Amino acid sequence: MFPKDFLFGASMSGFQVEMGYAKGDLDPNTDWFVWVREPENLINSVVSGHLPEYGVGYWYNFPTIHKLASDFGMNVLRTNIEWSRIFPRPTYDVDVKVEQTESDITSVQIDERALRELDELADKEAVEHYREIFSDMRKKGLKVFVNLVHFTLPIWLHDPVAVHKRQETDKLGWASKRSIVEFAKFAAYVVWKFDDLVDMYSTFNEPNIVSQMGYVMSVSGFPPAVFDTEKFFATFVNQIVAHARAYDVMKTLTNKPVGLIYAASIYESTNSDAELEESVGQFMNFAFLDAINSGVLLFQTREDLAGRLDFLGLNYYTRTVIQRSAQELSFGLVNMNWSIVPGYGYSCQPGGFSRDGRPVSDFGWETYPEGLLKLLRMMNERYALPIYVTENGVADARDWLRPYHLVAHMYAVERAVEEGLNVKGYLHWSIVDNYEWAKGYHMRFGLAETNYQTKSYNPRPSMYIFREIVKELSTEKFRSYLSSPYQIWRQKG
Amino acid sequence: MFPKDFLFGASMSGFQVEMGYAKGDLDPNTDWFVWVREPENLINSVVSGHLPEYGVGYWYNFPTIHKLASDFGMNVLRTNIEWSRIFPRPTYDVDVKVEQTESDITSVQIDERALRELDELADKEAVEHYREIFSDMRKKGLKVFVNLVHFTLPIWLHDPVAVHKRQETDKLGWASKRSIVEFAKFAAYVVWKFDDLVDMYSTFNEPNIVSQMGYVMSVSGFPPAVFDTEKFFATFVNQIVAHARAYDVMKTLTNKPVGLIYAASIYESTNSDAELEESVGQFMNFAFLDAINSGVLLFQTREDLAGRLDFLGLNYYTRTVIQRSAQELSFGLVNMNWSIVPGYGYSCQPGGFSRDGRPVSDFGWETYPEGLLKLLRMMNERYALPIYVTENGVADARDWLRPYHLVAHMYAVERAVEEGLNVKGYLHWSIVDNYEWAKGYHMRFGLAETNYQTKSYNPRPSMYIFREIVKELSTEKFRSYLSSPYQIWRQKG
Amino acid sequence: MFPKDFLFGASMSGFQVEMGYAKGDLDPNTDWFVWVREPENLINSVVSGHLPEYGVGYWYNFPTIHKLASDFGMNVLRTNIEWSRIFPRPTYDVDVKVEQTESDITSVQIDERALRELDELADKEAVEHYREIFSDMRKKGLKVFVNLVHFTLPIWLHDPVAVHKRQETDKLGWASKRSIVEFAKFAAYVVWKFDDLVDMYSTFNEPNIVSQMGYVMSVSGFPPAVFDTEKFFATFVNQIVAHARAYDVMKTLTNKPVGLIYAASIYESTNSDAELEESVGQFMNFAFLDAINSGVLLFQTREDLAGRLDFLGLNYYTRTVIQRSAQELSFGLVNMNWSIVPGYGYSCQPGGFSRDGRPVSDFGWETYPEGLLKLLRMMNERYALPIYVTENGVADARDWLRPYHLVAHMYAVERAVEEGLNVKGYLHWSIVDNYEWAKGYHMRFGLAETNYQTKSYNPRPSMYIFREIVKELSTEKFRSYLSSPYQIWRQKG
Amino acid sequence: MFPKDFLFGASMSGFQVEMGYAKGDLDPNTDWFVWVREPENLINSVVSGHLPEYGVGYWYNFPTIHKLASDFGMNVLRTNIEWSRIFPRPTYDVDVKVEQTESDITSVQIDERALRELDELADKEAVEHYREIFSDMRKKGLKVFVNLVHFTLPIWLHDPVAVHKRQETDKLGWASKRSIVEFAKFAAYVVWKFDDLVDMYSTFNEPNIVSQMGYVMSVSGFPPAVFDTEKFFATFVNQIVAHARAYDVMKTLTNKPVGLIYAASIYESTNSDAELEESVGQFMNFAFLDAINSGVLLFQTREDLAGRLDFLGLNYYTRTVIQRSAQELSFGLVNMNWSIVPGYGYSCQPGGFSRDGRPVSDFGWETYPEGLLKLLRMMNERYALPIYVTENGVADARDWLRPYHLVAHMYAVERAVEEGLNVKGYLHWSIVDNYEWAKGYHMRFGLAETNYQTKSYNPRPSMYIFREIVKELSTEKFRSYLSSPYQIWRQKG
Repeated sequence: MFPKDFLFGASMSGFQVEMGYAKGDLDPNTDWFVWVREPENLINSVVSGHLPEYGVGYWYNFPTIHKLASDFGMNVLRTNIEWSRIFPRPTYDVDVKVEQTESDITSVQIDERALRELDELADKEAVEHYREIFSDMRKKGLKVFVNLVHFTLPIWLHDPVAVHKRQETDKLGWASKRSIVEFAKFAAYVVWKFDDLVDMYSTFNEPNIVSQMGYVMSVSGFPPAVFDTEKFFATFVNQIVAHARAYDVMKTLTNKPVGLIYAASIYESTNSDAELEESVGQFMNFAFLDAINSGVLLFQTREDLAGRLDFLGLNYYTRTVIQRSAQELSFGLVNMNWSIVPGYGYSCQPGGFSRDGRPVSDFGWETYPEGLLKLLRMMNERYALPIYVTENGVADARDWLRPYHLVAHMYAVERAVEEGLNVKGYLHWSIVDNYEWAKGYHMRFGLAETNYQTKSYNPRPSMYIFREIVKELSTEKFRSYLSSPYQIWRQKG
Repeated sequence: MFPKDFLFGASMSGFQVEMGYAKGDLDPNTDWFVWVREPENLINSVVSGHLPEYGVGYWYNFPTIHKLASDFGMNVLRTNIEWSRIFPRPTYDVDVKVEQTESDITSVQIDERALRELDELADKEAVEHYREIFSDMRKKGLKVFVNLVHFTLPIWLHDPVAVHKRQETDKLGWASKRSIVEFAKFAAYVVWKFDDLVDMYSTFNEPNIVSQMGYVMSVSGFPPAVFDTEKFFATFVNQIVAHARAYDVMKTLTNKPVGLIYAASIYESTNSDAELEESVGQFMNFAFLDAINSGVLLFQTREDLAGRLDFLGLNYYTRTVIQRSAQELSFGLVNMNWSIVPGYGYSCQPGGFSRDGRPVSDFGWETYPEGLLKLLRMMNERYALPIYVTENGVADARDWLRPYHLVAHMYAVERAVEEGLNVKGYLHWSIVDNYEWAKGYHMRFGLAETNYQTKSYNPRPSMYIFREIVKELSTEKFRSYLSSPYQIWRQKG
Repeated sequence: MFPKDFLFGASMSGFQVEMGYAKGDLDPNTDWFVWVREPENLINSVVSGHLPEYGVGYWYNFPTIHKLASDFGMNVLRTNIEWSRIFPRPTYDVDVKVEQTESDITSVQIDERALRELDELADKEAVEHYREIFSDMRKKGLKVFVNLVHFTLPIWLHDPVAVHKRQETDKLGWASKRSIVEFAKFAAYVVWKFDDLVDMYSTFNEPNIVSQMGYVMSVSGFPPAVFDTEKFFATFVNQIVAHARAYDVMKTLTNKPVGLIYAASIYESTNSDAELEESVGQFMNFAFLDAINSGVLLFQTREDLAGRLDFLGLNYYTRTVIQRSAQELSFGLVNMNWSIVPGYGYSCQPGGFSRDGRPVSDFGWETYPEGLLKLLRMMNERYALPIYVTENGVADARDWLRPYHLVAHMYAVERAVEEGLNVKGYLHWSIVDNYEWAKGYHMRFGLAETNYQTKSYNPRPSMYIFREIVKELSTEKFRSYLSSPYQIWRQKG
Repeated sequence: MFPKDFLFGASMSGFQVEMGYAKGDLDPNTDWFVWVREPENLINSVVSGHLPEYGVGYWYNFPTIHKLASDFGMNVLRTNIEWSRIFPRPTYDVDVKVEQTESDITSVQIDERALRELDELADKEAVEHYREIFSDMRKKGLKVFVNLVHFTLPIWLHDPVAVHKRQETDKLGWASKRSIVEFAKFAAYVVWKFDDLVDMYSTFNEPNIVSQMGYVMSVSGFPPAVFDTEKFFATFVNQIVAHARAYDVMKTLTNKPVGLIYAASIYESTNSDAELEESVGQFMNFAFLDAINSGVLLFQTREDLAGRLDFLGLNYYTRTVIQRSAQELSFGLVNMNWSIVPGYGYSCQPGGFSRDGRPVSDFGWETYPEGLLKLLRMMNERYALPIYVTENGVADARDWLRPYHLVAHMYAVERAVEEGLNVKGYLHWSIVDNYEWAKGYHMRFGLAETNYQTKSYNPRPSMYIFREIVKELSTEKFRSYLSSPYQIWRQKG
């Protein structure tokens, strides 16, 4: 049984759902907007060629989507406020008090005056529109979970094409320290403007993915797609500091919880190599979070970072199966002695079965629900924080796999709750099909199908299952999915 | 839109759902009970080896299943009364008035005395139990649709093993004319005993399949599995006459409608050979029904058969794709100049796609929803009768295909209604997984999944779709299924 | 290494290869000729509908095929003399001396007079034609391996349709004891007429398959396809006695070796159930051979049967995977407590992989080369006889699988030789594609492809491999096939 | 029929086959040697991680491989001389006479003195070793076809990592004009040193691929993998000029033919868009060759380039299926209005079938033999030159597809010859499996399988077919492959 106050809902992001009519809802001021139409990316097929402006249309249709959420039993929705919409032009000139050591920014303070100056720079229409969105959520009985940055950055802060081409630019995104200060301004402003309508905040969605895909996996289609281990570390650290500084300014303005959303996975080796699993998992899952929770940043103690987390958001899709490499790769600071094993986790052929016999999504991701339970146990043990599953779902246009997938993962959460873990909510990715970054409209993650022509949203069978689980506060009714026809993991879990 | 009084429900049959606990619910007195445990069938894998007595358990669990029907929006259920349960021993000795010509039985009359004698032979506990079942249906708001024979015959009337082995026997089932008389007694007795609880009757379910599978397709696993074209014709004609005689006696006792349920298909040729489609379809779809509707039995006029149909029940699963044979096969009376083309209709490899790119069920049956609309148009044009779709569904353990299948077929029915055809109801096969004859428990046709261990019945996602369609009286909400991802047949239909 | 005198060749059978032009080469006088055009079989698709008279055309083209054999390194060919061609009419009236006990025929003696009477009944043209065939084999450097019965029987001896329909008939084939006497006559006559041209004889090809497919697996398409355990045992025993009586008369006329060809398999259980493997293997592999080798016929000692085997021919295609049944089936004399596990051995889906990951042929047969080595060890240990692999091959139209299959099985034989087993030859099934019984021309077993229109025979790549192995007397050159890409069985073998 | 003097052989390249023992045969001085161990490439999986130094081992085992070629009927082998082996250090300081216009190098002259200076710089052991290789070829009856550059460049001429990272470097490979001069020196030196052993020369292998993969398809794994349309054009033009200057100096030293090897394809649109096929094919197939044949370089007439081709080498693997794009992409000078259609040509899923039902290789390349005939007709019509098919083959580890593939493509060549086209030879790619660039040892293109552990080379079945075709001078014997089981293209071709 889930408790009565458990949060059930879905997550979205601005860039992925807002645009749709390519008119008043257009936001051309993000790095991603530029990135998905860059010819180099198109000719190399690292982006889909789909245009985000012909998408879901949430900017105008939010009441319909909120009603859908409400009708199907949800009590929370997460989305983010697009920085570029609020501040389509730079905020550099707004003066704020910054303290820094030789190497880092240790404090940013934003006073009333600064907030007023920001207000002058802000797009008032956009502010008002987001207020309408959040008001409507509340009206429909949905808690409002606001995230600040979900991948996209204002184009005045990050020019991904210039960085990719290694051209001279000062628009370096998270690779530049000054982004930290601007982010603190944005964060403070959001709280100042929206706090009456918000239930909980997070600063970042998956900052680790931003670093990893942007600066290491340089053929993945993520901006700026440049292999640069220095920039990888810079963005990794700068996002940590940016979170802490934003947290500080936000908490001067609100008592509501401020958390962070992390992309976690379970690292399993093919030959039960516990040492390898430990060392890889340590970096991939804990290094970032340890910094903002315990103030340990890569072996260094940083009091200015510690204790900056009111809750932990976890996005979980599948495991990662790894093995030791024959040869160690050396990248400046880092040596890498492991690699990913194809045929498992994120590295499967779409649509079939993994090497373990588990069903694989349209994206090529393995269904591995026991990993979610494992993850919740692990995170609960390490961090004394309330945990929300902030993303979990499956790209499955035909809804073949989603009924099983949904039940199995919600069962994992239910079980975690029953074990006494401090898990407070489950937000599915996503309520409706939307723009899946480099894959565009090819990947369909919605509980409801989006018809992009008519802007209508049709519940898939899974959505009825979701409603039923929420109504019963239990997966009990659908547990037959757990034993057949794919996997009997209940015994093993 | 469906009209408000449209019947939405499901069909079952006694042998397929009643037994489950192998105790008080056991009925060992049918030909099929013997047939599925006959060693020759087992060693040749023409039957599954599954035992019907460990099945659904409807005999005791009917209230649960009726509640499920009611909860998910159904307003009618069809099942049959097992002849063998009511009369476990022969009824030959009950004297009734039979008139016959040289070749056929033209009248059977059953008076009160005969009914009382039958009553003495009847198993009163079984009678009472069926009354409880039907009463409960009514209590749950379900119309009671009672069928008389659904494949099984009492073992005292049909010894399928003896017939198969061509041993001397007088238990010939429908190959013997005296079965006609006994059936009339059974039919009369049922009306006499149950009429207060029944809304509509049918005499037979798929009599054409009984002849075809039993006496032609002799490796199909249907009793008595003997290739014998004379017996094929005898059973074909005797079931026609049996229907007419039963209809006559029933109508002396009730005003409720008496119909018949026919297994129909759409016959399409690979090269648009209209003449072939016409001639094959003529025999396969119309020969039986013409006899009891218009009194034309294979070129002969028979007034004693005409007008014996108050409504027509149609079971539709898929089409049949045919071609002319290189050589004509000669079977005594009949020459056969066509054959079935593999890769379409009933002749596909399970689980993949047909040669036309349509999804195929676990049974190897092609999804062909436009065939249902075509069939309804054709039948409506030929027979001025109310039509019920009395079976339609798909073997799909994982419910991958059923959401699409269900919506597409219900859309076909909705469209038929909108075209003004006299279609009155849609009964899905089936409400819960059950014993699929020669395939046993391998094929799962339920809107709800049957857990055979715990005797619990878990709604699959499709069942929520069914409920939604019934609620809205339209498939509108789910029409996105019709265009993707399989087929855009809406334009073509 | 194979020894220099090792026999390398191929096997054929008369019915499967002789006809092709449907004129002078036609032999309509066999049970199989009738069987494959019987309407009941056609409409049930238990036979292919292909006509054997449009086949390989060996009757006229034998020189081409013998040249092919010779060009590709073969030194032996096996075929059989069609009984029905030599004696198109009954030989009952030729008087011979028969001794019998109450239950069995213990001796048949055929003197010069009887042989002359047979000669008058024989079709002299057919005799002469077979002599030409064998002479040509010799001319091309091929040893002549003559088999007497390869499934087909003269229609005057076996009416499969009557038996199937359980009609009264005295044409019972091997179910009748008098077939034993007629077979002895045929055998004696063959030796008397052809001995100067023959190198080795066998009486029967796969008598166990004749019993099993004909009288138990009654939907398999083998005549007479009637489930009858008494006839099963009768044919089993009568073929044993027929072999012994034929052996006796043949040995009075020749010193050349007389053997028998048996369809063997390896019986493996899914759970290493040694007791089950032992008991099933005992009956399936040894019961028949024990009788004619050791004189032990189903627990009874029979001196008149013992020692009637000069060599043992083994046909091997794949293993049989078995399991204990939940329930024991009882068939009169026999109880059967096991069943075949689908997904292995003969019970796979065509064209993919078995549940063990081994490649599967067009026929649905698993590639299991280690079984051949296991079989040779087992048979060599039990019987102190020279062994020939008389059939082994794969249905593989595209020659995708055959290169691996051929090398792996010939490697098994080579290894058996190196272990000191008394293995003397390897005859591939087959040299050219031919008529595969119930499957007709669908299954292509040839090292060369038969073009049935032009009657030309094109070597497949495998045939070049075969030639190379024969030339080198070793599979060494091709052993890379053994480790990749399918199976590393060399280490395990 | 092929003519008696037709060249049948195979192609190799130095980098792909020479190394194997990682000792005396090691050549670490190429851009590719560095490239395949660059961490960025490894972590992104754009290279295989396989090391070329554990490869075929041709440097020492050339006699074995030459014998294999000779044993299987070949009369020619092509390989290249690795520039980096002959000149492991820069040749810049050797003074030669260069004439240039404002924009281009129009003449390079290399006199005896310069050749002697080059000789001092050259690695004499390497020179001697290549002479042994070519001598052995001749001894085995193989014509010696020497290519100069097959993708690899000396590391002193091209630093792919620096270029990729857009670091300052003067080692720009073909993007720098001075590479033209150094190449002329290398070309002259090769002729001066090896001409007595060589039968025919080519300057480049697939210069178009070097430009396209290196500077446009920047995620393909080809160095330097940088999207740069200016460099794309520079390398395209500089290779043209380099060919012409090398041709000039070579012809002062030899009378033997000097050609160039081009990677050609057939461009087909999905909707028979002749205009699109024409315009795309024009650039992709003709722009480079027109320059060195007719002196037309991108609309400019260049007499210093015209007539520099004695023969044309064509590498053909499959077609390219294209369609007009919805949007035109603009890349500086060029607008691109078309894109490649997935599911055909090079863009298939490995191992299955293309959208046209044609078998697909391990590499994901469609089998499209009619394209080769189409190509030969097209090239023969445009250029009045002898044509050699210098590469054609298939990645097929199991030799499932190669028999068909080989016969179908050699049939295309045979037919071209019979139509009177000036086609002189067919060189298969390749004689043995080797290092397939970014795919390493994963792709197996050999007629013989390379065992990389033992350095042995086992002929696959296809190699026997190749021998047979060469012996018969015709594909006649194997033409059954053309009609079954894949495609009947003979009628259509």
